[in-house]
Amino acid sequence: MTDDTPAALPFPPVADVGEFGLIDRLEAILGDASKGEDVVVGMGDDAAVYRVGGAGSDGPSRVHVVTTDALVEGVHFDRTYVPLRALGWKAIAASVSDIAAMNARPLYATVALGLPNNLSVEGAEALYTGMAQACERYGLSIIGGDVTASARLMLSVTVVGHALEDEIVTRSGAQPGDLLCVTGDLGGAAAGLRVLMAGKDALEDDDDPLDLREFAAVVERQLMPQARLDRVETWADAGVRPTSLIDISDGLASEAHHLSQAGTVGLVLDGGLLPVHVQTALVAQRFEERAEAFVLYGGEDYELLFTMAESDAPKLAPDTYAVVGQVVEPDEGVVLRLPDGNRVPLQASGYKHY
Amino acid sequence: MTDDTPAALPFPPVADVGEFGLIDRLEAILGDASKGEDVVVGMGDDAAVYRVGGAGSDGPSRVHVVTTDALVEGVHFDRTYVPLRALGWKAIAASVSDIAAMNARPLYATVALGLPNNLSVEGAEALYTGMAQACERYGLSIIGGDVTASARLMLSVTVVGHALEDEIVTRSGAQPGDLLCVTGDLGGAAAGLRVLMAGKDALEDDDDPLDLREFAAVVERQLMPQARLDRVETWADAGVRPTSLIDISDGLASEAHHLSQAGTVGLVLDGGLLPVHVQTALVAQRFEERAEAFVLYGGEDYELLFTMAESDAPKLAPDTYAVVGQVVEPDEGVVLRLPDGNRVPLQASGYKHY
Repeated sequence: MTDDTPAALPFPPVADVGEFGLIDRLEAILGDASKGEDVVVGMGDDAAVYRVGGAGSDGPSRVHVVTTDALVEGVHFDRTYVPLRALGWKAIAASVSDIAAMNARPLYATVALGLPNNLSVEGAEALYTGMAQACERYGLSIIGGDVTASARLMLSVTVVGHALEDEIVTRSGAQPGDLLCVTGDLGGAAAGLRVLMAGKDALEDDDDPLDLREFAAVVERQLMPQARLDRVETWADAGVRPTSLIDISDGLASEAHHLSQAGTVGLVLDGGLLPVHVQTALVAQRFEERAEAFVLYGGEDYELLFTMAESDAPKLAPDTYAVVGQVVEPDEGVVLRLPDGNRVPLQASGYKHY
Repeated sequence: MTDDTPAALPFPPVADVGEFGLIDRLEAILGDASKGEDVVVGMGDDAAVYRVGGAGSDGPSRVHVVTTDALVEGVHFDRTYVPLRALGWKAIAASVSDIAAMNARPLYATVALGLPNNLSVEGAEALYTGMAQACERYGLSIIGGDVTASARLMLSVTVVGHALEDEIVTRSGAQPGDLLCVTGDLGGAAAGLRVLMAGKDALEDDDDPLDLREFAAVVERQLMPQARLDRVETWADAGVRPTSLIDISDGLASEAHHLSQAGTVGLVLDGGLLPVHVQTALVAQRFEERAEAFVLYGGEDYELLFTMAESDAPKLAPDTYAVVGQVVEPDEGVVLRLPDGNRVPLQASGYKHY
């Protein structure tokens, strides 16, 4: 007998179930080990939330927010074109972004560093300097750390933040009719990565040198991304509380699906409204890529994707956000409205390590 | 000209300054980034401590305690003889031990996992199961996680714990005259590692098989160590507050030097009083090692090393601790008293990754 379907492996590798499948299994096995009476938000959001006591019995509870992210050499970065200071910055900024994505503010960080034996002490100090600069920028303190040897350079950053319980915004909570918005332009980090990869290739091709300075803005988006903690302040000052919120680390398409699933709503994204930096468009043109691919599937922009009641829109200055679509009934799914008015289902694919 | 001293490298590698040197440099570069008005204990202890508010204005502050530890394949463990469930257990237990070493209790954990592409899903689930079992044992919840691809298996665990501010015990605080004590026998984990390594070698030697069951107790000490959270309860019940405290993760000698430096005291360890499990002694005999080397330099026992006022000793049941020496004036340094009465300086060397 023959069979054209691929043979099932007796022990399927983790690559077959992917990051989200592995996290689902982790949640299932932890079961009660992931709950606690003071846990407000457990696994499955940008960060977990737990009560810490404090505030009066008549006021909202004070909560802490915690998130952990790891960056691994060869998976998340290539040391041939990522300066170590930028890497230190990015590790902190990416975790601060997760705190901002709960509408909270960062307080403390701990870092676990795996440093190859042959890394120079200068290199380690550059890494530390980038972390210190990001901590100063975002107002948090590194209070603990572990340093170990590792064949590949590795950084794992945990950030603890704070908020009042009623300030917390999760991935769920969007209502049909809400506006779908982003805090800035998209696809820049992916465009920057494309330039850096091309720059590496160009080193081996004397006839076609590449001047990275032409694309400095998107290279900076890739190397030293900004966490949009400023928008947490913007919303607080304006008295606006988003109805749902997530940071764009894996690409707009993937994050839109997370909001849709968590909130049990549909989302219509308007392809003509997606904000794109001029350099992102130029990179796409130069390297014959589609700018929409950078925007939808690129990842690492660390902008915030959020929904809010339409009545809140007038409270926000127009330069602090861009409307990119609308929340609809769940049976509509997640769709992209093309400039010609046609709607196409938006695939969830984002950046994947496996 | 010739010179017999080794040439200085223009860019010394991190291996030249080692784990503690790298942490010192990290603290120096972070500077103000490692401080905060609510930070009670920053870097340099088993865990950091910060106030979270709560408790009355007339009572002690509530504090949280946070620690991060990473385990990296090829550095901390060898998958050929460390079952994945044991590895998951150990990652949690090691961080809980750091919380116990502040006289605090664990609440929550976050985990960052780097899993090789070809790891089986079954293997990942075994890892998760070990973590869940340790969380159940020590009463904490895993509330956040990150899973990424990684060439080498990697686990980074952060644990947040709690205490009242006046319950916290740091590495400093020992006074000359205090008793130096441990919570259990030492060297067992190192003996267990020796057996596991011999077992691996024995696989290639049909004439000399090794029955691991002969040494089950020390193999368990190595594979599934216990955090001595039970002693935090013992001390609370007895109304005893150690004057200084550290967990034994790098070996007794190294930890004794940490207590000595942090507390600006000398320590006299009595070689005849160091508690050793009978199997640890048998392993030393069988493999022609010195049991004292396991005890002093072995590491990973995760017992607690502490000092207390001599007047507190009668409050504790004799089977909850062993006196191993005494705190003396700082100019006496850290010395080992041999059975013949002679004193020798105790070297700080412990387990090193670099």
